[in-house]
Amino acid sequence: MELEVKVTEAIHPYDIAQQITGLHDAEKTLAFLKLKGTLKSDVFSYLNKSEQQQILRQLGNKEIADILNSMSPDDRTQMFENFPDKLIKDVIRLLPDDERKLALELLGYPLDSVGRIMTPYYIQAYQHQTIRELLKQIQIHGKRAETLNIIYVIDENKKLIDDIHIGVLLLADENSTIASLMDWRFECLRSTMNKEEAIHLFEKYDKTALPVITENGTLVGIVTIDDIVDVIEKRDTEDIQKFGGLEALDLPYRDTDIFTMVKKRAGWLVVLFLGEMFTATAMGYFDGEISKAIVLALFIPLIISSGGNSGSQAATLIIRAMAIKEISLRDWWFVMRKEIKSGLALGSILGSIGFIRIFIWQKFGFYNYGIYWAPIALTVSLTLLGIVMWGTIAGSMIPFVLKKLRLDPATSSAPFVATLVDVTGLIIYFSIAALLLKGKLL
Amino acid sequence: MELEVKVTEAIHPYDIAQQITGLHDAEKTLAFLKLKGTLKSDVFSYLNKSEQQQILRQLGNKEIADILNSMSPDDRTQMFENFPDKLIKDVIRLLPDDERKLALELLGYPLDSVGRIMTPYYIQAYQHQTIRELLKQIQIHGKRAETLNIIYVIDENKKLIDDIHIGVLLLADENSTIASLMDWRFECLRSTMNKEEAIHLFEKYDKTALPVITENGTLVGIVTIDDIVDVIEKRDTEDIQKFGGLEALDLPYRDTDIFTMVKKRAGWLVVLFLGEMFTATAMGYFDGEISKAIVLALFIPLIISSGGNSGSQAATLIIRAMAIKEISLRDWWFVMRKEIKSGLALGSILGSIGFIRIFIWQKFGFYNYGIYWAPIALTVSLTLLGIVMWGTIAGSMIPFVLKKLRLDPATSSAPFVATLVDVTGLIIYFSIAALLLKGKLL
Repeated sequence: MELEVKVTEAIHPYDIAQQITGLHDAEKTLAFLKLKGTLKSDVFSYLNKSEQQQILRQLGNKEIADILNSMSPDDRTQMFENFPDKLIKDVIRLLPDDERKLALELLGYPLDSVGRIMTPYYIQAYQHQTIRELLKQIQIHGKRAETLNIIYVIDENKKLIDDIHIGVLLLADENSTIASLMDWRFECLRSTMNKEEAIHLFEKYDKTALPVITENGTLVGIVTIDDIVDVIEKRDTEDIQKFGGLEALDLPYRDTDIFTMVKKRAGWLVVLFLGEMFTATAMGYFDGEISKAIVLALFIPLIISSGGNSGSQAATLIIRAMAIKEISLRDWWFVMRKEIKSGLALGSILGSIGFIRIFIWQKFGFYNYGIYWAPIALTVSLTLLGIVMWGTIAGSMIPFVLKKLRLDPATSSAPFVATLVDVTGLIIYFSIAALLLKGKLL
Repeated sequence: MELEVKVTEAIHPYDIAQQITGLHDAEKTLAFLKLKGTLKSDVFSYLNKSEQQQILRQLGNKEIADILNSMSPDDRTQMFENFPDKLIKDVIRLLPDDERKLALELLGYPLDSVGRIMTPYYIQAYQHQTIRELLKQIQIHGKRAETLNIIYVIDENKKLIDDIHIGVLLLADENSTIASLMDWRFECLRSTMNKEEAIHLFEKYDKTALPVITENGTLVGIVTIDDIVDVIEKRDTEDIQKFGGLEALDLPYRDTDIFTMVKKRAGWLVVLFLGEMFTATAMGYFDGEISKAIVLALFIPLIISSGGNSGSQAATLIIRAMAIKEISLRDWWFVMRKEIKSGLALGSILGSIGFIRIFIWQKFGFYNYGIYWAPIALTVSLTLLGIVMWGTIAGSMIPFVLKKLRLDPATSSAPFVATLVDVTGLIIYFSIAALLLKGKLL
């Protein structure tokens, strides 16, 4: 078990950062200052934003400059997001000229664009270079590059013209030129492209890094897949939170103060509440029926929740499939047919169970639904069939409608679909009841 | 716009695969067979499983062997998942000896383990080697390696003892030995570790590849981050589907046949339906109250859905924070305090709106709640406060309970929490009504 000890002996900066986060506020900066040399910047990049800000505010200028300087440009840009403007300015000022220029340039890209997560440290080559020259160049600049797996070939105007896998380079004769290895085919991202678009391209091209070009083809940086991992997790967190019926938090749960937390949740909760008020209105129209047949009221929660549940199932499936580009707008009819079949099957299952439930309760005396128990059971049963079908269709189609309107499909959250189905569900219920129980209970 | 043309001219295998998928079944294999040389295997790995199986069944042995042989071992293992056993056996038989051995070995690891996504193609080195020797070795074996960014150092027993960044190697004197560059510190995965565990380690150590060792420390492969991206998306898809109240589909929406689709959805839908039946039972107990005060029935959907919505918000936040390891079991008390405060604030907001709604409707004659409109409004208002608080606490604590019981927290889906809150919500509602309306309406 010699190995065990070695692995645990080497305390990783991540773990130190975790320990610092666990300390009392007053002790955090002190503990951080005790760290030696490069460990400081390593640990710093693992701290979360509130700790980073707190520590930055208490450090001397020299120390701040050292830490920021040894962070990679993409990590630095990421860190600045959500920082107060004043702090960003104060801090950027401390960087050496070239790094400051770089930091400001990266911050100049739109917030959700690929430009924000790119790094300018990659290996570039020219057609006329020999492989020997390039390998020498890699020895000099390679240490800082984020990946050595791919070399990017540019022309004299810095236009990207090819990408070459390092394996191809290593296998070739050292005296041949880069030009002899080129196939003039490459995949790339655009600097102004949305970060989430980049996810799909990384998956499509199955690369660990992709070059970033401007509108006129100039190579300005590369994006590595480890930064895309963060983009994926952020997208999924946002989608999940939206789907849960609240605004995306932006910050981790831990770091979100109670005021923001309530604000992000109250918005949708109030909207849904106002929407759900129509159920009270709808039921107001039917209060005559309810007073004549109290028994109808008993099944209201059961019925509307079944519609809501089937709707939220359908919405989940479609929203996720859209997010990972598995289905697109033009698939709506394919989905519609599939969901009608599913809804029919699911509705029949619940409808049958509903009928059996009332039958058993009546037969074994758990509850007395009166002499009209059979038409009541039929009403509940048919309503369930109808509402599950309606929930399924609504849940699966609303994401398409939202996408068509260029809104985020994830907004059609489980609670949103449920609310919509609740109101219409009541109307379905009382309409079927009016039809089947006319002259009996009603 | 010279560049534009070049990028579009080069049709990517991904796009060809998409085109083939769009064809009629009969044409798929034919179109595939028309592809030239290596393009075949490139396109093949982009096809989805049903297409792959269909084509494999119609190809000659030689062609199958060629395709499989040129796929990377990790892609091949991934492909075999969900393949019928018989087909796997038929196909593996066609591989050359060493590749067959490798394929069987990788398939021997548990389905969700790191072993399944690792590749045996990496650069390894020994302490006594000089850097010149290693660079020569890279020139020979480098082409096949999945990454050249990191070199793994092993001892004579194949035990992993260090990892060295290629940058360090390139900067060092070619005559020095590997031993002179070693710090004996490395991070690694275990072959039997769950794939989802690996996600966290990749994020923690911020690496693009991690070595995989067995229980006794032997290096058996590496996992690259592009495969982790798939694991992340799969985890999130499963969590989202579970949270939407259905079993995870396993296959893409498109590829899931209607029978499986209904099965995956009916399970939870029926469980929730049976749970929701308690609302009918609970309301049965209160049918006396309802018949005396029909007006109480009108607000039932509004009240229970508010509890469900607030519960689903809280559950979403906690489940996601747990999935990305932002909070763990011991944080339950921190979360509880935060959620009590949030619930109180949110409940007060909805309670106030509810009171105002009844007041306005009564005052402006939209609906007549009778002379006891004020106590009714107070009942609804207090119930909303209570049920939103209860929903928030239940929604945030159920994931902790499930995790403590070693179940998946994502099982506490939005519909699950809503159902639980519905039943208890009715009891809260009628209890408050009994208290405030005793001697008035009741």
